[in-house]
Amino acid sequence: MPNERARSARTAMAGSNTEAMIIEVTRGDMVESRHRAHIAIVDPDGKVVQVWGDIERPVYGRSAIKPLQALPLIESGAADRFRVSVAEIALACASHNGEPRHVELVTAWLARIGCSVADLECGSHAPLHESSVEALIRVGRKPDATYNNCSGKHTGFLATARHLGEPTAGYIRYEHPVQQRILGALEQMTGMRLGNAPRGIDGCGIPVIGIPLANMALAMARLADPDPHVPAARAAAAKRIIAAMASEPFLVAGTGRVCTKVMETVGAKVVLKTGAEGVYTAALPTLGLGVALKVEDGASRAAEVAMGRVLQHLKLLNADEEKVLADVLTPPIRNRVGREVGCIRPAAAGAS
Amino acid sequence: MPNERARSARTAMAGSNTEAMIIEVTRGDMVESRHRAHIAIVDPDGKVVQVWGDIERPVYGRSAIKPLQALPLIESGAADRFRVSVAEIALACASHNGEPRHVELVTAWLARIGCSVADLECGSHAPLHESSVEALIRVGRKPDATYNNCSGKHTGFLATARHLGEPTAGYIRYEHPVQQRILGALEQMTGMRLGNAPRGIDGCGIPVIGIPLANMALAMARLADPDPHVPAARAAAAKRIIAAMASEPFLVAGTGRVCTKVMETVGAKVVLKTGAEGVYTAALPTLGLGVALKVEDGASRAAEVAMGRVLQHLKLLNADEEKVLADVLTPPIRNRVGREVGCIRPAAAGAS
Repeated sequence: MPNERARSARTAMAGSNTEAMIIEVTRGDMVESRHRAHIAIVDPDGKVVQVWGDIERPVYGRSAIKPLQALPLIESGAADRFRVSVAEIALACASHNGEPRHVELVTAWLARIGCSVADLECGSHAPLHESSVEALIRVGRKPDATYNNCSGKHTGFLATARHLGEPTAGYIRYEHPVQQRILGALEQMTGMRLGNAPRGIDGCGIPVIGIPLANMALAMARLADPDPHVPAARAAAAKRIIAAMASEPFLVAGTGRVCTKVMETVGAKVVLKTGAEGVYTAALPTLGLGVALKVEDGASRAAEVAMGRVLQHLKLLNADEEKVLADVLTPPIRNRVGREVGCIRPAAAGAS
Repeated sequence: MPNERARSARTAMAGSNTEAMIIEVTRGDMVESRHRAHIAIVDPDGKVVQVWGDIERPVYGRSAIKPLQALPLIESGAADRFRVSVAEIALACASHNGEPRHVELVTAWLARIGCSVADLECGSHAPLHESSVEALIRVGRKPDATYNNCSGKHTGFLATARHLGEPTAGYIRYEHPVQQRILGALEQMTGMRLGNAPRGIDGCGIPVIGIPLANMALAMARLADPDPHVPAARAAAAKRIIAAMASEPFLVAGTGRVCTKVMETVGAKVVLKTGAEGVYTAALPTLGLGVALKVEDGASRAAEVAMGRVLQHLKLLNADEEKVLADVLTPPIRNRVGREVGCIRPAAAGAS
């Protein structure tokens, strides 16, 4: 059983690297703030390749597991039935900025499945992208649910329910078949039973399930390198999801976002997905590995730097890519007039 | 020497409570994220009354020490010369929201000292208050430096320089007499030499100095209860600062802000000041105590909850006040449709 393999691999690692990765925020002469990142790098058999900190404690994957939550959209046949495009699959996996292209694509997709913004149960929030916020305010419009960073994922859920003839109302509830199918996919991909796992409700209303980072990374490894670790239909779905994200980095996040910048720079060898509260995942098809990390305090700024450090550690970035991504790997801190006054960086090994 | 007294008091405390205060962010069945708060509660003699975590490591006080940085405005005679009002003293200590009243008062004060927005070296940023941001966008205006949350502090700096006939240009530089006077006041109030302390540059361009929380709390205790711990002119200035902040809680922060809510609710027994990167201070005149805390990872959400817990620990809130401040003491986490899905709270003692 995959879960048992993962567990024994983890046991073999015990004591080899139990310190969290420290991410420092510097200012002038000293380190001003410190974050602790817990990180698992796992292969599709469940072998733990590298660990920082505690990878056994349950973590809510939040939006970082959207690529896994998109599996039923494809497996169910809904994607083929509704001629879902590569762009739309990328949006189903996105935490998008609410920029015009994101919103237009989601709106058109909703219409094609016979739904509208009124069917989205994710609620609304101001776009993550500043000038898109300003554009709405200038014309006196409130953002509707299509602007929610999760609107693509929710449209994918609606498409699956429509295809299978299920009621769309209540599709965000744990008991709804849409969420139960996702739970089943998560169980197979993570190699663990999740019926009794801790759970709660995400910002967009759907269930969140507590999953150890080791198992979350296993699921990402299987997404990256599915054969022969998952059934054929699921493997095909995994490949379509990874290909869609890699080919549409803008749709997965947007202008200025780390997921987008990294995927635009390094291409299909790294498929990244951020989540709220300091979670970050990566599927690494060329290495056949999955990564899942959680910053203990929930800070995205540290999760981004920790993920950059992992990519460097795995030698996935060449010198040119490191140069292009310098502001992602070690983001400068600037004061209000733009002067560089510090940075965010991984601490030297052994720092605490 | 106060510093030595503080040091020996701290030594006596060693081992009694060296764990940081843990602030938990819950969601559904489990704790999703965790913060560590280091906290010192000190009396004006330097006796450490209570400690959580490490109070010896230098911390940048950021905006949480604005009340100390306002001392020279009054001591120098600038406040009397320019008939600086109670409201303006509160603004000198503020991290204000950039709401219309904040901006109007700062603009008028600048004019009265013969300066204008062009003399402010703090840079600009969008107001912290959302509907004030929207109001600016609607009329197509960019925020100028009066909207900077630090504009009152900077106007106080300019007033002091004007009064003493110093050049106003460059008043944010470490070497400028404005900053050197502040350094001198900080040394006396914290009871330690700061010439070799670690330093950097704040968001608003002025120097930040690394100060152990024990000494920062000592300075706040002396601000709260200055006689006979500080010279008479400084004691008088301290009393004016504390009285101004207590009487103008809106000006110190603004709509919806924790500093404002707490001071409006409990009155003059608690004078609070937040700072960037998870710093928070309090001067407690009725107890004759000072508090300084720093959340290791820099999160304001945890600093606010830790400060609330300190006020409860010191029995400064009665049952009615705790009820009014429930959303400050244990802030609910809501999803996008407003449903309560978790909260931020101090962990039970002994949790880690």
